[in-house]
Amino acid sequence: MEMVLEKQVKALSERTLRRLPRYIEILKRLKSEKIEFASSNMIADELGLDSIQVRKDLAATGVIGKPKLGFAIDELIFGIKHTLNWDNQTDAFLVGAGSLGSAILGYKTFSDHGLNIIAAFENEPSKVGEIINHITVLPIEKLSDMAYRMKVHIGVITVPADEAQKVADMMIEGGIKAIWNFAPVHLKVPDFVIVENAQLSHSLGVLTHKLAESLK
Amino acid sequence: MEMVLEKQVKALSERTLRRLPRYIEILKRLKSEKIEFASSNMIADELGLDSIQVRKDLAATGVIGKPKLGFAIDELIFGIKHTLNWDNQTDAFLVGAGSLGSAILGYKTFSDHGLNIIAAFENEPSKVGEIINHITVLPIEKLSDMAYRMKVHIGVITVPADEAQKVADMMIEGGIKAIWNFAPVHLKVPDFVIVENAQLSHSLGVLTHKLAESLK
Repeated sequence: MEMVLEKQVKALSERTLRRLPRYIEILKRLKSEKIEFASSNMIADELGLDSIQVRKDLAATGVIGKPKLGFAIDELIFGIKHTLNWDNQTDAFLVGAGSLGSAILGYKTFSDHGLNIIAAFENEPSKVGEIINHITVLPIEKLSDMAYRMKVHIGVITVPADEAQKVADMMIEGGIKAIWNFAPVHLKVPDFVIVENAQLSHSLGVLTHKLAESLK
Repeated sequence: MEMVLEKQVKALSERTLRRLPRYIEILKRLKSEKIEFASSNMIADELGLDSIQVRKDLAATGVIGKPKLGFAIDELIFGIKHTLNWDNQTDAFLVGAGSLGSAILGYKTFSDHGLNIIAAFENEPSKVGEIINHITVLPIEKLSDMAYRMKVHIGVITVPADEAQKVADMMIEGGIKAIWNFAPVHLKVPDFVIVENAQLSHSLGVLTHKLAESLK
């Protein structure tokens, strides 16, 4: 396992990064069925992916399979999590404690995915002071200062579209380096800030288009 | 505008389909700034995308730009929505009225994105009978029958991972043709069923990996 930890993880393509969590899902299921080793072919079959692609993705994690047996499942899950930096937890602030924000605060599994939301912020006075899943909702005015003092690197935006840019600016002022954006708006940020858009509508368009095609 | 409606929309790549909603976001902002025409260069600049790619994506909508002026913004929004089938509303059932499910039921904007959730289902008796955003939570036992009778085509899965496959099977039994899956599990479905995975972890991995790289 040391090999994995010592290996310098290279920057991977977004498509590879989006596939890696799906491999974990399959590996966990295989593990629950008492299976100890998995091959890239097996994983590719389960997901309906090309096995050469799966092999390349797994090679990028630095985990080495055993001849004839394949990958030790525990080791491979560990290697994928390391590649995604899910073996560390990064502190995050969330802004917008509406229905989606509250749902995200309620997710217990994000801590398995490297995300540790330590505070939430709101501009709506009636929500300030609420406690959602042990996380206190604070006034938005405190965001930049607290992010700076606490060296928080990730910001989660779950405010309406017309407030999102202002919130992003406050986050960046506070030294936040990566924004997970759920607001349906394109954020303008400096080059050194990472934005990952998680708008549900981007995914929904794929579904509604394909369904319309299939019913023709 | 008739040209757009009459045109046979071709099956587009997933990557194009995921970009189209982002163009709508930009176009709506430009519109709010009283701008009436937009070029593919302008949209590409706003989003930091390649302008040739944007031009190709927009060509797929069938909307024709005007020389020197570019695309009439209203017409282009309309054309993109038509391509995504967002000018129709498709009835959907949601299963799993936990925190994420409730947040999704609370989203008023999905109706702008072609999705009309008309009922929710739960296996937890204490939740059955609840009304969330005017939608009644029904017992899961009624799912297949009601989907079949009401010709519902889209199913949204927001149950925990270990219940998702069973729910997918019930949806398919009821004739549901497209599944929007939020459960962190790979669903096994027949070839004629469309699955669009919307697990938040897939998006989160991109963010945590890139952030770790940038802090090295």
